[in-house]
Amino acid sequence: MINITFPDNSVRQFENGISGLEIAKSLSNSLAREILAITVDKEIWDITRPINKDASIKLHKWGDEESKHAFWHSSAHLMAEAIESLYPGTKFGIGPAIENGFYYDIDPGDSVQITESDLPDIENKMKELASQKQVYTRKEVPTDEALKIFKEKGDEYKIELITDLGDAKLSLYSQGNFTDLCRGPHLPDTSPIKAIKLLNVAGAYWRGDEKRKMLTRIYGISFPKQSMLDEYLVLLEKARERDHRKVGRELELFTFSQRVGSGLPLWLPKGAQLRERLESFLKKVQQKHGYLPVITPHIGQKELYVTSGHYEKYGKDSFQPIKTPQEGEEFLLKPMNCPHHCEIYRSRQFSYKDLPVRYAEFGTVYRYEQSGELHGLTRVRGFTQDDAHIFCTPDQLKEEFTKVIDIILYIFKALDFQDFTAQISLRDPDDKEKYIGSDENWKKAEDAIIEATQEKGLVTVIEKGEAAFYGPKLDFMVRDAIGRKWQLGTIQVDYNLPERFDLEYVGADNEKHRPVMIHRAPFGSMERFVAVLIEHTGGKFPLWLSPEQAVILPISEKYHDYAEKVLNYLNNSDIRTLIDGRSEKIGRKIRDNELKKIPYLLIVGEKEAEAGNVSVRKQGEGDIGTMKFEEFVEFIKTEVEKQL
Amino acid sequence: MINITFPDNSVRQFENGISGLEIAKSLSNSLAREILAITVDKEIWDITRPINKDASIKLHKWGDEESKHAFWHSSAHLMAEAIESLYPGTKFGIGPAIENGFYYDIDPGDSVQITESDLPDIENKMKELASQKQVYTRKEVPTDEALKIFKEKGDEYKIELITDLGDAKLSLYSQGNFTDLCRGPHLPDTSPIKAIKLLNVAGAYWRGDEKRKMLTRIYGISFPKQSMLDEYLVLLEKARERDHRKVGRELELFTFSQRVGSGLPLWLPKGAQLRERLESFLKKVQQKHGYLPVITPHIGQKELYVTSGHYEKYGKDSFQPIKTPQEGEEFLLKPMNCPHHCEIYRSRQFSYKDLPVRYAEFGTVYRYEQSGELHGLTRVRGFTQDDAHIFCTPDQLKEEFTKVIDIILYIFKALDFQDFTAQISLRDPDDKEKYIGSDENWKKAEDAIIEATQEKGLVTVIEKGEAAFYGPKLDFMVRDAIGRKWQLGTIQVDYNLPERFDLEYVGADNEKHRPVMIHRAPFGSMERFVAVLIEHTGGKFPLWLSPEQAVILPISEKYHDYAEKVLNYLNNSDIRTLIDGRSEKIGRKIRDNELKKIPYLLIVGEKEAEAGNVSVRKQGEGDIGTMKFEEFVEFIKTEVEKQL
Repeated sequence: MINITFPDNSVRQFENGISGLEIAKSLSNSLAREILAITVDKEIWDITRPINKDASIKLHKWGDEESKHAFWHSSAHLMAEAIESLYPGTKFGIGPAIENGFYYDIDPGDSVQITESDLPDIENKMKELASQKQVYTRKEVPTDEALKIFKEKGDEYKIELITDLGDAKLSLYSQGNFTDLCRGPHLPDTSPIKAIKLLNVAGAYWRGDEKRKMLTRIYGISFPKQSMLDEYLVLLEKARERDHRKVGRELELFTFSQRVGSGLPLWLPKGAQLRERLESFLKKVQQKHGYLPVITPHIGQKELYVTSGHYEKYGKDSFQPIKTPQEGEEFLLKPMNCPHHCEIYRSRQFSYKDLPVRYAEFGTVYRYEQSGELHGLTRVRGFTQDDAHIFCTPDQLKEEFTKVIDIILYIFKALDFQDFTAQISLRDPDDKEKYIGSDENWKKAEDAIIEATQEKGLVTVIEKGEAAFYGPKLDFMVRDAIGRKWQLGTIQVDYNLPERFDLEYVGADNEKHRPVMIHRAPFGSMERFVAVLIEHTGGKFPLWLSPEQAVILPISEKYHDYAEKVLNYLNNSDIRTLIDGRSEKIGRKIRDNELKKIPYLLIVGEKEAEAGNVSVRKQGEGDIGTMKFEEFVEFIKTEVEKQL
Repeated sequence: MINITFPDNSVRQFENGISGLEIAKSLSNSLAREILAITVDKEIWDITRPINKDASIKLHKWGDEESKHAFWHSSAHLMAEAIESLYPGTKFGIGPAIENGFYYDIDPGDSVQITESDLPDIENKMKELASQKQVYTRKEVPTDEALKIFKEKGDEYKIELITDLGDAKLSLYSQGNFTDLCRGPHLPDTSPIKAIKLLNVAGAYWRGDEKRKMLTRIYGISFPKQSMLDEYLVLLEKARERDHRKVGRELELFTFSQRVGSGLPLWLPKGAQLRERLESFLKKVQQKHGYLPVITPHIGQKELYVTSGHYEKYGKDSFQPIKTPQEGEEFLLKPMNCPHHCEIYRSRQFSYKDLPVRYAEFGTVYRYEQSGELHGLTRVRGFTQDDAHIFCTPDQLKEEFTKVIDIILYIFKALDFQDFTAQISLRDPDDKEKYIGSDENWKKAEDAIIEATQEKGLVTVIEKGEAAFYGPKLDFMVRDAIGRKWQLGTIQVDYNLPERFDLEYVGADNEKHRPVMIHRAPFGSMERFVAVLIEHTGGKFPLWLSPEQAVILPISEKYHDYAEKVLNYLNNSDIRTLIDGRSEKIGRKIRDNELKKIPYLLIVGEKEAEAGNVSVRKQGEGDIGTMKFEEFVEFIKTEVEKQL
């Protein structure tokens, strides 16, 4: 008999060799029908795999990531089986589950090319095989045997993978006529895979190495129900429409240049203005909260990052040192602003009465990413953090946390992020040696975070063991308008850098003490934040932030003079306004400008010109009435105030 | 007989072998007493050197740079003679004239150390030798003979210099017992050197190479009259008091850190705020003038600078390329923003109707300088240009120039630079092949600059042959409050980059045309400009820019509540205000705050608190009366408006 511990800490005894599926059946048949994966002592297993030891388990239904992973991984194998049957002799690279769906990198041979027009056939084949309820069987084999199998098959990619794994214990999974080298876990059989969509075909270098062969990568997604797939495809279409790369191009916010380099955005005028508005907005809030601006260079001597520890940790994998033509100096592009801010703190003496000190900088940092990993503004090689470092006493932590939370909540309100949770990452209480800083300070910091979030009434998730080695932190997870999750806003306690930079303040006891440091970035980075904001709003920014706030549409050329008069008045009143002076019909002008997502359309014709009025249309909503143009200024200002 | 052409183009005949001094004597005895150097066909000569050919000449009195150069160079030789007499066996490196005065790098031997306390003795020796009216004699010698002389003397530094010069025709200058390898020119004799001051002693590596011996550098200055020296020393003292490095430290504007690196300023909060105010000020003006902000990264692929030509020109001598850990990429820290702005221009199509396009960016650039050349904020390795690039048609050049001049004049007014000249650099009309761009375009651009400066009524100096190879330019030279000259503000036409980046616009003729580019930076760089502003104002910034505008001084603790009330009112009205809440006597508080250069001191005691008043003192000027604190807000706003 073995002891099985459930998530509620209850323990039950089962026969040795019982499987997750059997345990589920012992609880309820409906549960057994729904479970797709099982966690056994922190490993994810097939639900049919026998358990031969005492263990803690958790059963996973579709909603859990673990289940989706097994489901999509099994779907990747199913796709491979379909491809092998349609394109005999195809060789297989790797085929993992990903965040949404799965892919497989394949080599169908030099004479065969698989394109998107071939995907429906593969899809149909997959559906046919799935309906056969093929069982996924796991077999553990020694390296020799695995090698023999794939040598017989002539699959050089798998042979290379096995060879690289060395003498590890390998597992193979088979279903139908297809066998793969695989850690698992998988579904018991193919029958739950009811709805399948293969999405696209791309090229991918074998093992990400541009010097090796370009394989064919096929992406797909699958679900246990057709309705789920339908829903997902609608979401995918919505996401495509608001993809920040597409909207960014349409609204002329940013661009990239191969000559400047991948992952290095060039902000076009409208994007730069948008970003400056966001920065001013945050600067104003920060000024109210006692932040002090500083400006530091984008490089620092290697020694700076040796002191901070960043060099040891990231040096090899990031942008390489910049040498000088003489003098043997070495500089690094700064990956973080904190070492520079520590040096500013060190430039004078502080007493406890001077603390907290809050240094803020919109600091541009550079971090190397492989060019294949880059993605629009969300994954770049250079980005500007809305960074600040607060140096305070341990007793000031809670108040400082509360103030940072206030700033973040104010931002979320102004930008209409209504759905968010706060994730508190604490240290693992069973593994205290992993962390630096005294027990007393950790307790102070963790209590400060928990109390601050409670007082602010935040919805929180506490994750034990997720703290960095140098301090606990608080992250904000935001759900956007179409339900996707983004991480925005971090507040991180740090006991490490004050130690490494030997930072001090003189306490009330006249002794020297170590300050605590808080890193915080409510936006995270300007690049990523603008991307998320575009994806959240689809480019229809809140009125206060919108590149243009109103466009004047004269009904005919006769009213251009009046339109100019209104334009000047509005622009002088700081309402960002344009004229559409084209000689198009008014209906056409309205349609075109609706598409540009300008919040207000002001129609002016004879009646309006005579009365000093504008006829106001709200973008996407239609006519909202006529008013004096001076009144329109007040109207806009009131709307903006409501948002901020 | 030879023909001598004078600066007014008049020509006179003289005996072959006549000297500048003799020519001067033929004109007037008083002129002959005053001249110190002569330009003969663009070379500067001793006034006693015989002229053996037809030549254009210019005679130089003390006011000319050429004369000062000869005077100070002769003084350096005089100092060397004095040192050789006081410290026999001293070896000599180089001893040039510099902008103000001269220095000599010497090696007095390992057992001798010359310190500042030794300078008066050397000075006295120099005066004694000068009064002997020693004649400077020039002798041209072959390399062999020069080598023999310095080998006999055992002066290894001169030997190295001669050896490096190879087979050149060398000249030696001697006066008294001292002989030096020297191109000249020099004074006829030592008698005009009437006033001498040796200023300081520093270490300097032989030939600037840190691997070679550290020599002793002695700086000095000399004048033909004692009153000139006295005046200079007063100026020097004034300059020391307003040295931006000293004032920057006192006002906590910026700092440096060895760990971050030399020449990389860290802007402290008050400095960052000052800089941000300057930037907002310029942004506002630029917005009015139709500039569009853009933001670009601080690095670019090497290819970008190969395209622009910067790599070929500066690559070897600047910060070396940044490699990536994979993918074999090479990036460079950007030395200029223009290539990035050209790439932004290339990202869309332009019609002539869209031009001019004006891209503005406060762009931080990095340029390598030897660490020994760095100086506060005026000579740094990273700086932020108030950069903009205007892309226009050749016909729009004049209007664009006029608008940029407007911006520069507005800045000079707001920052109280009243004394400036505009230097127009044109191409050399006799050497047109040196320049790129058509004759027609050069004429358009040069005329545009000249007309624009005339219409604005600027005091201009035209320098032919001083244009860059890619276009003519306009520079503003400013005289600061103590009479020193600084170069501020440049407008540069560029025909080269549009060519190299293949920039285009579609003209009214529906054909493709090349736009012209204007580079312009009214401040130059934020670092240098703030330095000049500090040296100009001594840290007493104009009211609108001042880090703090007013400080409230309560007469005693009883009035702290009232002081707080005034503080809140003023800060909410955007008057940057502090309280001096120390329990010091009011007289002491006034004195201390006068030193901090805060423009207004507001004294509050019983009378003021009862009446809702403040007693206002203007920094450096004293009491200017009592007013309601609400009135003080209006008073300040009016003062600021006058400045802007």
